[in-house]
Amino acid sequence: MTVDLDALVARIDLPDDDARAAAAERQSRLTKPTGALGRLEELSLWLCAAQGVCPPRPLERVRVIVLAGDHGIARTAGTSAYPPEVTAQMVLNFLAGGAAVNVLARQNGATVRVVDVAVDVDWTELGASVPDDVVRDKVRRGSGSIDREDAMTREEAEAAFALGVRIADDEVDAGADLLIPGDMGIGNTTPAAVITGLYTNQDAASVVGRGTGIDDATWMRKTAAVRDAMRRGRAVKGDPMALLTTVGGADIAAMTGLLLGAAARRTPVLLDGVVSCAAALVAQRVSFRAREWWLAGHRSTEPSAAAALDRLRLEPIVDYGLRLGEGTGALVALPVLVAAGATLREMATFDEAGVSDREA
Amino acid sequence: MTVDLDALVARIDLPDDDARAAAAERQSRLTKPTGALGRLEELSLWLCAAQGVCPPRPLERVRVIVLAGDHGIARTAGTSAYPPEVTAQMVLNFLAGGAAVNVLARQNGATVRVVDVAVDVDWTELGASVPDDVVRDKVRRGSGSIDREDAMTREEAEAAFALGVRIADDEVDAGADLLIPGDMGIGNTTPAAVITGLYTNQDAASVVGRGTGIDDATWMRKTAAVRDAMRRGRAVKGDPMALLTTVGGADIAAMTGLLLGAAARRTPVLLDGVVSCAAALVAQRVSFRAREWWLAGHRSTEPSAAAALDRLRLEPIVDYGLRLGEGTGALVALPVLVAAGATLREMATFDEAGVSDREA
Repeated sequence: MTVDLDALVARIDLPDDDARAAAAERQSRLTKPTGALGRLEELSLWLCAAQGVCPPRPLERVRVIVLAGDHGIARTAGTSAYPPEVTAQMVLNFLAGGAAVNVLARQNGATVRVVDVAVDVDWTELGASVPDDVVRDKVRRGSGSIDREDAMTREEAEAAFALGVRIADDEVDAGADLLIPGDMGIGNTTPAAVITGLYTNQDAASVVGRGTGIDDATWMRKTAAVRDAMRRGRAVKGDPMALLTTVGGADIAAMTGLLLGAAARRTPVLLDGVVSCAAALVAQRVSFRAREWWLAGHRSTEPSAAAALDRLRLEPIVDYGLRLGEGTGALVALPVLVAAGATLREMATFDEAGVSDREA
Repeated sequence: MTVDLDALVARIDLPDDDARAAAAERQSRLTKPTGALGRLEELSLWLCAAQGVCPPRPLERVRVIVLAGDHGIARTAGTSAYPPEVTAQMVLNFLAGGAAVNVLARQNGATVRVVDVAVDVDWTELGASVPDDVVRDKVRRGSGSIDREDAMTREEAEAAFALGVRIADDEVDAGADLLIPGDMGIGNTTPAAVITGLYTNQDAASVVGRGTGIDDATWMRKTAAVRDAMRRGRAVKGDPMALLTTVGGADIAAMTGLLLGAAARRTPVLLDGVVSCAAALVAQRVSFRAREWWLAGHRSTEPSAAAALDRLRLEPIVDYGLRLGEGTGALVALPVLVAAGATLREMATFDEAGVSDREA
């Protein structure tokens, strides 16, 4: 399968400026001093523009799409504090509803979909029963060790990307009104650091963090691996699909497709941590208009997060020192966006409430 | 009625360190890297300590108590952008469910109670029908213009304070598990600035902000009024009840009682903006242990907020440029505390989920 990026890009439009203007006008008539709701007002304008309507509709079907995949680098270069088999174990934890993303989704009335894009496991061998829709579209078992080999073939990268676009289409068709990209994969902050380093012109040591909590020796191994991978990736920086093939990962390719697919379907996205920010950097390279459909949920403590958010010109909604991934940072931010929409939609205007406006 | 502050202080204990320790231990066993939930982990420990139990109970009855009162200073010194009658109009808006605090409370499953402590209105004259429980405990019509006269008599201050303590008792008896102090009163950031200036040793110009959005001339009048009131209040700084009498307001006295009453009943409080922070500074002066029961919901853009929070040693949960009061900043922060509790309560442990912990 060959992905027609040009056709996808052509489908990506900008949010609705008329709805944004109507939102600003309505904000000025609500029973509060203008500007008194601060960032909530700005978010309410964004939401109206993305939905193309004012007041904004309630967010009734928020979907977290956890794209799971392993990364050879964790095994060959030992870049993680956790053994690679944790990816598969955590997929089962997601399916059982016991992970942080499940709890936070439940708190917000959101639902979680888990997709095995490239987990390095044979579920049957593991003796685990996994629903068909989780494994049906698996691209490969783990991505290559990007310090020395490609993450996958170009065909696999295109298949993973197309899977992401298809997931966005399916979810929007099923009524999703906000998508949250989640990640699960031991080692996945390594390709995220490589991509972010390349697109923000930082060196390896500036973008490599402690991930799940690695020690100094592991940090040095990880930094060396990122440096080697950045060297491999630099030549193909101008070709997003080649970059994903060379130093990305099937999960990140799928996430890139998801982000662009959502934009093509005029569906807002709340980004999570460094993995989704790395995918967003690739997706932004494909279509600069796409980023108008995304909000940054949070600023991860991983150093590449700040660089990526700066490059994306996105101001995160929360900054709580989270570094878990899965979509958790976006879910902690979600209530703020919901509150922004609710105040614009439900508050009385000065006229309705018979409240005197300010003295001119 | 004379308030027995010593007896109240004697009832204020510290949160439960054993529950806090149990929460820290449980956090380390959840299926995530230790510390990966950042500030949520810290908040979950605080919640367990306040509730005296681990895992923490869900917050099922969150009550916003809006204490409404007018301030003579707004009329005599013209310190507000809005006419004083807006206080009464907004009380009616709260009762009709159309204000920001109503919308945000609904979003969070919280409920709003409005108490007319000192609104400068005769509801009957206004032709408005207000429920008896809103007006039953009214202390007076408006507080005095504190740049030139006392806010009220000592007896009134004690009555307002006792009303706040009683409200806390009633709410906790009715099952409230978290209280949010809300304010409504044109001119109320003026006494808040006076109290904060006095307790943080700042001069008037450093603590006076734009309130609901005043212009330069109004800011200068407001700053002069705050300076005059601070001069009046300085002599009685050491006596919290005298300070409330001299330069506070009946609504702020009631809020001070509410904060101490909640602490005496081991009930957590989420503070809102500058008015509740000013009340918290007075309450902290009465009992330094009380602040262990409070969290700061947000940092208002009003300059006195930062000074007060610093003095209270409270790090706000959100910082979105809000400056509305009513309890809205605390309500925007509430989902973060709820998420903190939910993750600690509902996430699977490594053992339960069969997930490998980090390699030592």
